Amino acid sequence: MTNSSSDRRPGEFQLIAKYFAPLTESSPGALGLSDDAAFLALRPGEELVVTTDALIEGVHFLHDDPPEMIAAKSLRVNLSDLAAKGATPAGYLLALCLPGWPDESWLAAFCDGLASDQKNFAAPLLGGDTTATPGPLVVTITALGFVPAGSAIHRSGAQPGDAVFVSGTVGDAGAGLELLKAPVVARSADEGELIGRYRMPVPRLALGRRLRGLASAALDVSDGLIADLNHISEVSRVRIVVDAPRVPVSPAFLRVRGNDLQSRVFAATAGDDYEIAFTAPAGKRDAVVQAGARAGVPVSEIGHIEAGSGTILRDEQGREVPLERTGWVHL
Amino acid sequence: MTNSSSDRRPGEFQLIAKYFAPLTESSPGALGLSDDAAFLALRPGEELVVTTDALIEGVHFLHDDPPEMIAAKSLRVNLSDLAAKGATPAGYLLALCLPGWPDESWLAAFCDGLASDQKNFAAPLLGGDTTATPGPLVVTITALGFVPAGSAIHRSGAQPGDAVFVSGTVGDAGAGLELLKAPVVARSADEGELIGRYRMPVPRLALGRRLRGLASAALDVSDGLIADLNHISEVSRVRIVVDAPRVPVSPAFLRVRGNDLQSRVFAATAGDDYEIAFTAPAGKRDAVVQAGARAGVPVSEIGHIEAGSGTILRDEQGREVPLERTGWVHL
Repeated sequence: MTNSSSDRRPGEFQLIAKYFAPLTESSPGALGLSDDAAFLALRPGEELVVTTDALIEGVHFLHDDPPEMIAAKSLRVNLSDLAAKGATPAGYLLALCLPGWPDESWLAAFCDGLASDQKNFAAPLLGGDTTATPGPLVVTITALGFVPAGSAIHRSGAQPGDAVFVSGTVGDAGAGLELLKAPVVARSADEGELIGRYRMPVPRLALGRRLRGLASAALDVSDGLIADLNHISEVSRVRIVVDAPRVPVSPAFLRVRGNDLQSRVFAATAGDDYEIAFTAPAGKRDAVVQAGARAGVPVSEIGHIEAGSGTILRDEQGREVPLERTGWVHL
Repeated sequence: MTNSSSDRRPGEFQLIAKYFAPLTESSPGALGLSDDAAFLALRPGEELVVTTDALIEGVHFLHDDPPEMIAAKSLRVNLSDLAAKGATPAGYLLALCLPGWPDESWLAAFCDGLASDQKNFAAPLLGGDTTATPGPLVVTITALGFVPAGSAIHRSGAQPGDAVFVSGTVGDAGAGLELLKAPVVARSADEGELIGRYRMPVPRLALGRRLRGLASAALDVSDGLIADLNHISEVSRVRIVVDAPRVPVSPAFLRVRGNDLQSRVFAATAGDDYEIAFTAPAGKRDAVVQAGARAGVPVSEIGHIEAGSGTILRDEQGREVPLERTGWVHL
């Protein structure tokens, strides 16, 4: 951790040594956070994949959220971007803007959350920055990963005739967020499950790696399945057709939101799922399903690619469903 | 630029396309900011150097500071870390937490500042994230660079008998910051120069590269010359002795702050200089001075390394100067 001029508090360096340096134990290039920068040895034939996301108190998490959860979510949304590109994590940098000087119990819990997820996803801390801020807590993580050169999965490779897939289930996180925004009432186990999916996304790293050479285009679902697929549609210059009844939802989602077209539309347009949406040649669908099985995450075929532009959702009768949320239409 | 769930404003993607995508023209791996991540081809035999720093409105810059300047300073403090390690910039990621939605003129000026400095320092935008924040503007930059594997300059290599050097002049930025904090009065040209050094540091990239193979340890001066040298002292496990009269100060600094011991102590303990402080074997001092001349920045020998611990400042008579600012003593 380097330190900026605003951080001349006694104790800062001890806190870094106590809480953050241990997170670098498996990354020799972090030099125990004792240098200006971190170093990463590059293996021949590999390409670096980098992504950054800032999470802000009051926007992406709440003031009273458990610090372990804030830490884990901040890391996971970044690892999810690596997953969607087929990359293997190499580590991450953490820029922490702390409102005042945190009590040590908060910092200890935050670092516990990082420590646990670093092990889960083999992504050690490489370096970072801590600064006091007059504003809300901001956690900015930059994740670094590797792919064999040329094997990364971009958004641009979808072709007419490809099939469209998504991992896991969508809509849970969006339903969880709606529950969190509503007045607090006694919550069912199903509701708790949906809220958990909003709070703690699972980056699909094992699946992403297995999609190299199979998927023609991929991204992670953060804005909403249809809005995100539309990014592929735009960059690949194709038309994407998604069949609403095939959009995979969880049993908890079905019980809480019902099984009608409206709930399926919600699932396809709610965000924060962090599943991988991707396209692959129709002839590879067996290999795709097998890749999912090996990665331990179900993969559902939900539509197809045509010549043209735009992304549409169809009902059981094949009619285009008009979508109320039009934000994505103007992307 | 990926976008998080809070950013479903129509127009965001157009703004990214209009203002940020042009900044990626010389970085093909940025894919025009149309993907989840950026890609960087790695050359065999090179090592990656990464660093991140967050700059916060009200802490590192003021609300009314020119947006070009905020952009440039945010980039430059990160490039300064690369410079101190001897690295050549490869590019940077930008996570921008924007208070509300900025007017386009602000964003245009901010991106002009980035565009200009990208050219100055050959460091193109690789990717990033934009998010609305209820708090102050936060600009988090992650800079990536390369060195030939094994040639990076760390903080840990200083040896007894080494000489201690610093590039340029120190104290200007600290004096400029004090002027900015004082009630605004008509300012002299000298005062303007000092303020300019605070506002717009110059990363010593050309010098840093030339110090590979010469410097035994290096870092950039952000906390203050003595405080920062003490980091080298700690990590290299040596004692650093700095002679106050040899600490280089600018003509403007001398005219504004005077030429007594007190002003020299101020220069050695004020921060935000972003010069390179480094050590090198005494026998290499001619090569060091030549490296400075070739890089276009003067280099001053200011002290030496002994066995022991700690960093001290000596007066003309060789007596240790007691320092009032003790924060760095406890590092």
